[in-house]
Amino acid sequence: MSKKRIRAQDVGEPPEGTWSNCLVIDNHVYIAGMTSRSAEFDTVIGENSYEQSIGIFDKIKALMQSSGGAMADIVKVNIFLTDINDRDQVWRARREYFSGDFPVSTLLEVSKLVHPDMSVEIEAVAILGAGVE
Amino acid sequence: MSKKRIRAQDVGEPPEGTWSNCLVIDNHVYIAGMTSRSAEFDTVIGENSYEQSIGIFDKIKALMQSSGGAMADIVKVNIFLTDINDRDQVWRARREYFSGDFPVSTLLEVSKLVHPDMSVEIEAVAILGAGVE
Amino acid sequence: MSKKRIRAQDVGEPPEGTWSNCLVIDNHVYIAGMTSRSAEFDTVIGENSYEQSIGIFDKIKALMQSSGGAMADIVKVNIFLTDINDRDQVWRARREYFSGDFPVSTLLEVSKLVHPDMSVEIEAVAILGAGVE
Repeated sequence: MSKKRIRAQDVGEPPEGTWSNCLVIDNHVYIAGMTSRSAEFDTVIGENSYEQSIGIFDKIKALMQSSGGAMADIVKVNIFLTDINDRDQVWRARREYFSGDFPVSTLLEVSKLVHPDMSVEIEAVAILGAGVE
Repeated sequence: MSKKRIRAQDVGEPPEGTWSNCLVIDNHVYIAGMTSRSAEFDTVIGENSYEQSIGIFDKIKALMQSSGGAMADIVKVNIFLTDINDRDQVWRARREYFSGDFPVSTLLEVSKLVHPDMSVEIEAVAILGAGVE
Repeated sequence: MSKKRIRAQDVGEPPEGTWSNCLVIDNHVYIAGMTSRSAEFDTVIGENSYEQSIGIFDKIKALMQSSGGAMADIVKVNIFLTDINDRDQVWRARREYFSGDFPVSTLLEVSKLVHPDMSVEIEAVAILGAGVE
């Protein structure tokens, strides 16, 4: 029942003493607000919110796989944009990673994300086994 | 243990390939950020944040009932306003749907919601059975 | 399985009919968006985001202890700032309360918090036993 920290290849780990990208406790998976930063955290990859969303969902997918699960196990995503008009770009990216019953979702425009080049941040909650049909 | 999508009469379903309003996994219930849109998603119902909150809580209540639960099972609500000064209106609406030990809550002002006529969006997490006394 | 409301000494309780600071259901702990208000809710304690974060983490720690848990059981924190540039101050405070595998985290700048003197609000999710090594 104790928490297990999940790492994935190509997903940059945050600096020591800050946060974890992904924790699994029993069958519950918590994924931090992910952004499209490079593995070294020094640049933001993606010219627009579609491309950044692809970068983010790739990381979330890698973390889910390292957790022993899959995208279909994700039950909730929260999406934070710096421009609400980019939502169609995020939706377009999301359709490449989910099918059937999509996760519940909240999508908001916030004032600022951590880096001025970031236009989207996405966090997720999953339950291992939720996606089994 | 697999996720079950919950629908409710009078609660408009989002377009195919976007998100689910409500998913139940075991006894955990996740409800998307709900807004006071009409069932056809084309207009926002409610002249102010009180009226919009009533519209939202009505939907959440319907989804909870379709889940086999009740409002008392809700353990967490996150409330997003476009004007923080509307919080008393949301609180007033909330008192019509909860009693006893209210859900934990976070209330924030964000830059924008999806539609300019929306002034409030509310998401919820519930655990079936949590409200049984 | 029914929800249990958790109170802690020195943590001000919200007004009747508004929200709960902390609910425990089985081994899941939900903590509301906490701010550095005094126990009487009339003033905000802390000259800057570091000091306010200390005030907030003190409350979260007290609530976790009243829940029968500890800070190490926290799996997720969401941090809302009114100035994204204050994030280093929050991180500095966070390092005084966590070690090992930190919680997953989302950090955002929002337009406004409930009181103009507040610069930071933090909510948390914990699973009792998650921190046991």
